[in-house]
Amino acid sequence: MFDTAELDRKVSKEDYAEKAPPLRQELLETQIALTKLNFPVIVLFGGVDGAGKSETINLLHEWLDPRWLVARAYGKPTDEAAQRPPFWRYWRDLPPHGRIGFFLSAWYSDPILNRVHNGTSDAEFDEELDQILNFEKALTDDGVLIVKFWMHLGRDAQKERFQQLEEDPLTSWRVKEKDWENWEKYDDFTEATERAITKTSRGESPWHIVEGADERYRTLSVAGTLLERIRRHKRQMSGSGEPPQAPSPAQSESIRVSDLSYNPSPEVTILSQLDMTLSVPKADYSARLEELQGRLSQLSRQAQDASISTVIAFEGWDAAGKGGAIRRIIPGLDSRLSQVIPIMKPSPEEFSYHYLWRFWRHIPMAGRVTIFDRSWYGRVLVERVEGFATEGEWMRAYAEINDFEAQLVRNRTVVLKFWMNITKEEQGQRFERRKKLPHKQWKLTEEDWRNREQWDAYEAAVNEMIERTSTFRARWTLVEANDKRYARIKVLETVCEGLEKELAKLES
Amino acid sequence: MFDTAELDRKVSKEDYAEKAPPLRQELLETQIALTKLNFPVIVLFGGVDGAGKSETINLLHEWLDPRWLVARAYGKPTDEAAQRPPFWRYWRDLPPHGRIGFFLSAWYSDPILNRVHNGTSDAEFDEELDQILNFEKALTDDGVLIVKFWMHLGRDAQKERFQQLEEDPLTSWRVKEKDWENWEKYDDFTEATERAITKTSRGESPWHIVEGADERYRTLSVAGTLLERIRRHKRQMSGSGEPPQAPSPAQSESIRVSDLSYNPSPEVTILSQLDMTLSVPKADYSARLEELQGRLSQLSRQAQDASISTVIAFEGWDAAGKGGAIRRIIPGLDSRLSQVIPIMKPSPEEFSYHYLWRFWRHIPMAGRVTIFDRSWYGRVLVERVEGFATEGEWMRAYAEINDFEAQLVRNRTVVLKFWMNITKEEQGQRFERRKKLPHKQWKLTEEDWRNREQWDAYEAAVNEMIERTSTFRARWTLVEANDKRYARIKVLETVCEGLEKELAKLES
Repeated sequence: MFDTAELDRKVSKEDYAEKAPPLRQELLETQIALTKLNFPVIVLFGGVDGAGKSETINLLHEWLDPRWLVARAYGKPTDEAAQRPPFWRYWRDLPPHGRIGFFLSAWYSDPILNRVHNGTSDAEFDEELDQILNFEKALTDDGVLIVKFWMHLGRDAQKERFQQLEEDPLTSWRVKEKDWENWEKYDDFTEATERAITKTSRGESPWHIVEGADERYRTLSVAGTLLERIRRHKRQMSGSGEPPQAPSPAQSESIRVSDLSYNPSPEVTILSQLDMTLSVPKADYSARLEELQGRLSQLSRQAQDASISTVIAFEGWDAAGKGGAIRRIIPGLDSRLSQVIPIMKPSPEEFSYHYLWRFWRHIPMAGRVTIFDRSWYGRVLVERVEGFATEGEWMRAYAEINDFEAQLVRNRTVVLKFWMNITKEEQGQRFERRKKLPHKQWKLTEEDWRNREQWDAYEAAVNEMIERTSTFRARWTLVEANDKRYARIKVLETVCEGLEKELAKLES
Repeated sequence: MFDTAELDRKVSKEDYAEKAPPLRQELLETQIALTKLNFPVIVLFGGVDGAGKSETINLLHEWLDPRWLVARAYGKPTDEAAQRPPFWRYWRDLPPHGRIGFFLSAWYSDPILNRVHNGTSDAEFDEELDQILNFEKALTDDGVLIVKFWMHLGRDAQKERFQQLEEDPLTSWRVKEKDWENWEKYDDFTEATERAITKTSRGESPWHIVEGADERYRTLSVAGTLLERIRRHKRQMSGSGEPPQAPSPAQSESIRVSDLSYNPSPEVTILSQLDMTLSVPKADYSARLEELQGRLSQLSRQAQDASISTVIAFEGWDAAGKGGAIRRIIPGLDSRLSQVIPIMKPSPEEFSYHYLWRFWRHIPMAGRVTIFDRSWYGRVLVERVEGFATEGEWMRAYAEINDFEAQLVRNRTVVLKFWMNITKEEQGQRFERRKKLPHKQWKLTEEDWRNREQWDAYEAAVNEMIERTSTFRARWTLVEANDKRYARIKVLETVCEGLEKELAKLES
């Protein structure tokens, strides 16, 4: 989930000097216009310490008109608050129509801290998150706009940040012993946070994950996203009396927007950070392949005995080698207990059900394996980009998919998801080769060329898909697939490791 | 919650003979029309054994065209199903667009049985109900119509029913030892069921509670409601591309409809069953009043010491004596620690917040008491009847209110809710008296007369309010208030008992 917020994205001084002033002006104008409208805006900042939560609030406070603004931070409940239900103080502090309220951590703070420090159980934690959902739903149903930012720093970046602050005598007071103690628990925080974000990122109040390391980047990212969300909400609220449950179809905007979040450096995505030169020498390949297939063969038999099922989903660019990778897995599996499901356009029958129905049909029985060649992620990839699904539909699909996969994981299924990545150049060459080889021509269709034209839109969709669905329960594996040998080895290794990890749980 | 389904409502043979055939015809025509539409209908039957779940399914199966219909009942999972996530079999069995599926208990069965027999914890149970909500939400978001009936029988009625079945040699096989064992646990089932219904009754998939004792009544009730829900959904789906989250404003229908549920005997409501002749003789009144106020005085001090708060809400007909009852409570409370909040039309300030905001403001600190003279229930009473709230708004208010009160109860607050009931005749006389007495004339406004004209609409709203918000956490007390003395004594007694019950928990 946080992979997309550890890309070391930066905005240069010059770029900032150019983009910040007009953004500031637009944001201020939008705020003034908001004072006449019949909904308030709640901006919630959560995130890792040192990722710039308070700095961003302070800066926006400067940018905006403070008369129509409140900012709230919460420590231990006061006497007044401690004697009432936990949400009482948040209700009290809600902004009225036409105002903006900034909330620092607020209702997310205690559930996450309790999870990390007091080991709240899964069910209790989910129950607390549910209460948050009820609270936010009551507000968004009433027309309130809720914009939630999660400011992120990687483990090392946070350490660096603390050290920087400590070295400067003017800021050293800001780093407390508690902060280092929390840093030691970085992974626990990540687990808790991912669970919280997954569960509370709903169509009507999604989280925006912001890379917090670079001040200029995070400022533009937050300000731009906030501006876009307010504008969008304004359009929706003026459209109908009832507040909409999901955003209306995207409209083209002058600033580049990855549909919901403003991204000041759109050229950097999770995919652009991959080292696409990775390769496996031809000389090593066969031996490694054989060894891995043998390992998989053993592991899959153990998994079968232990009634552990496996679901593998392949997504990727056209011609990225999904089929080839799948064919290298097959020899490691018992063919009686495994099946490959190719996913095409839904048939008329499939089309008359919920889009998840056709995937539920193929969920394997205990101990078996199903490999999907393309998958339910079509909803947030091709259906999103081509407009086959409305924005409301693909927005809520993230939560539906996370819920679907969580059910599989709870049922002792290893869920593995591969994005097969090739560069645009590599794809071009593969297409040309296919054109020339008679026995491969059938693989190349008009559609492939059309998809290729939409490369950037797909890349943004992939980035958001990974941000919203690479969860602690079921992570995405991004496969550098310019070199087919490397890709196949990496896929096989990941499948083996996934099974090993699940089998190891049996022993502990 | 089930108070409204123990009213002994019946439909006479003649009445049934008149109403059933046209209903059957309309339902069949609607089903045929449905085959051309792009959504399916899921009809779920839950409820107490013996309340007619399977009989109703069988009858509807006869009434409808079986070609476009499936009926599903679930026992222990088959091998196929047991090896997959629990929802797999329900996904498999979903009806496609244009079809109706009847589901017997289905996804509600295991969570409730586990709660009763295996003592699932609160958090675990809520987690299971959450999974149901996610499942139903994914479907309703996709345009599926879900109609859920809870068939109810009172404790004694169920016993009677079992005995009847046992006496008849043709049906005695239907009553198993297990049924009697479950009957012993009637109260546990009620607790589990109330919690399940409260949590899963959302605007987009509300439960309809059906009194199951009389076959003709329950048949008309289920068939009429189903017809109305399908018609309504059809209108909504044709209105816009996206399925609506909440029903559109009610439209007048030829059959009498309590907004969502068809009620074959609308003259019987929870209020019509009250014994309005109850009274307290003048001779006893003062002594009992004084004694109760003394008892309250002690109890409220104990509650204060134990940090138990109290929230009391008064609703009722105009001139039903809310103020008088409140004035009789006051002497039993420490005036420094209690306050009365009169609720009028929202001020412009209040109006610029969520409607619950102004009630949250007045939540008492630990050990204190707040009495609301009219309350948050205005949302589902006056705002509903007068059209100040849209149907979507008041429909979701039931869940919001239940959630609000649950937060109070979790925070050790005694929540008491009184409906002060007088007959229409009694109200007429009181209005006349007020008109004549100079010092009371101010109490009588044009609005009171207008409200009086809407008596039936209010009565339907009260009935539904009690059905949907009289929960195990916070029950409604209906007060027979034609006799003011009786009413005041009953209110005071209920307050005392509420505090005693909460204080007793401390000792155990």
